[in-house]
Amino acid sequence: MQRYFVPVDQIQERTIMVIGEDAKHIARVMRMREGDEVICCDGQGRSWLVRLVELETDRVVGTILRELDENVEPTVKLTLAQSLPKGDKMDLIVQKGTEVGITVFQPLETARTIVEYDAKKQAKRRERWQRIAKEAAEQAHRTFIPEIRTSQSLGFWLSSIQEYDLVLMPYEGEEQRGIREVLTRFPQVTTIAIVIGPEGGFDKEEVERAKAAGVQTVSLGPRILRTETAGLVTASAILYHYGELGGGK
Amino acid sequence: MQRYFVPVDQIQERTIMVIGEDAKHIARVMRMREGDEVICCDGQGRSWLVRLVELETDRVVGTILRELDENVEPTVKLTLAQSLPKGDKMDLIVQKGTEVGITVFQPLETARTIVEYDAKKQAKRRERWQRIAKEAAEQAHRTFIPEIRTSQSLGFWLSSIQEYDLVLMPYEGEEQRGIREVLTRFPQVTTIAIVIGPEGGFDKEEVERAKAAGVQTVSLGPRILRTETAGLVTASAILYHYGELGGGK
Repeated sequence: MQRYFVPVDQIQERTIMVIGEDAKHIARVMRMREGDEVICCDGQGRSWLVRLVELETDRVVGTILRELDENVEPTVKLTLAQSLPKGDKMDLIVQKGTEVGITVFQPLETARTIVEYDAKKQAKRRERWQRIAKEAAEQAHRTFIPEIRTSQSLGFWLSSIQEYDLVLMPYEGEEQRGIREVLTRFPQVTTIAIVIGPEGGFDKEEVERAKAAGVQTVSLGPRILRTETAGLVTASAILYHYGELGGGK
Repeated sequence: MQRYFVPVDQIQERTIMVIGEDAKHIARVMRMREGDEVICCDGQGRSWLVRLVELETDRVVGTILRELDENVEPTVKLTLAQSLPKGDKMDLIVQKGTEVGITVFQPLETARTIVEYDAKKQAKRRERWQRIAKEAAEQAHRTFIPEIRTSQSLGFWLSSIQEYDLVLMPYEGEEQRGIREVLTRFPQVTTIAIVIGPEGGFDKEEVERAKAAGVQTVSLGPRILRTETAGLVTASAILYHYGELGGGK
């Protein structure tokens, strides 16, 4: 069944209104008719089965038949703190990370980050990533649209990491401690942040500062992953570990 | 240290010869000199520390100092049997799959596969994917270059799956059996194939035929992954399960 994210203020007790591009999609692209059914999500975790009652090109109204209990969001909430990569790689990171189940994307600026955006371009980028997250969430049948936060420096972000139960930094220089060893020591967590370096990696001072702030450096094994791959692989491993990826706890 | 894959016939007991693009890269791009050291791999799992003794633009000769024991290849050999996706998505699949540790890529044609290549274009595509695999293996510090097999129909490929200890097909329609349940039942495996459907998924008849041939359908959880994401996430989960991803068995 076709799925649409609808802003909370267009959802009432018994009716839902879809406007803009999504209304066009329903009426023109999908050529739906009165009586057809769709799933509407508020992007915050709730979703409803909706029967369409009024279709115009720029405005579609539906009656809520019932709330759904889809239960597709991971119990473990993952934040991907991703050092800004070159080119348009962040598009791929947001799309794939949303599919697998990331909850928050936190772009980071680090010592070896090459890209620099002015405030205006930054706002545009963030809008773009938010749109990619929405589309990927729709396609992945998620009921939550991941949040794209404003870029921060690594140092400033580190000052706020008490909000997480566990912060993992995959790091080539970490040869002792594999990710599984750390996850096994934390059987009960609800929020985990994954910190990924840019193309050139973190510099040693950054790693030391992160460790001092409570970040756990971990090894992902002997193969070196690119910056745009590392977060997705780490998220897959974490979700698998906690039974959130076809796990059957 | 810089790494190069060198064809087996250019490797002798005490010397290694690098020609073509890689020789240019050593001499021109990296501007190396006599006495500089590089790592050369045969792409079959062996690698050596090499001191350069003769540098020309199209031919570099080095003396083998010693064989390395890098141990970067997974013990579990993974084949990704990937239904050919649209556009250039297979490039991404080969690159990312190589980074994480796939050993063989087997392109598949299925009922809902849209792309069709004639023999000539197919050969070109395969060459391209092989080149992507080589570059990704170099960057990931692997010592083995994944093999790209010739495309086969799903049906024909299914007739050859006895070569695997386990064949997993992530499938939306599988609601009972999570991937972890199946992996837990197979504590000792050395070869696993992952079968991924095209954009439109496998059709029901294909799934039934695969099951009859011994393929295990599994769930990756409630979120729906795109065809270019599913193989990488499944491979990550499998490698994590068997302690091959920062696992420390």
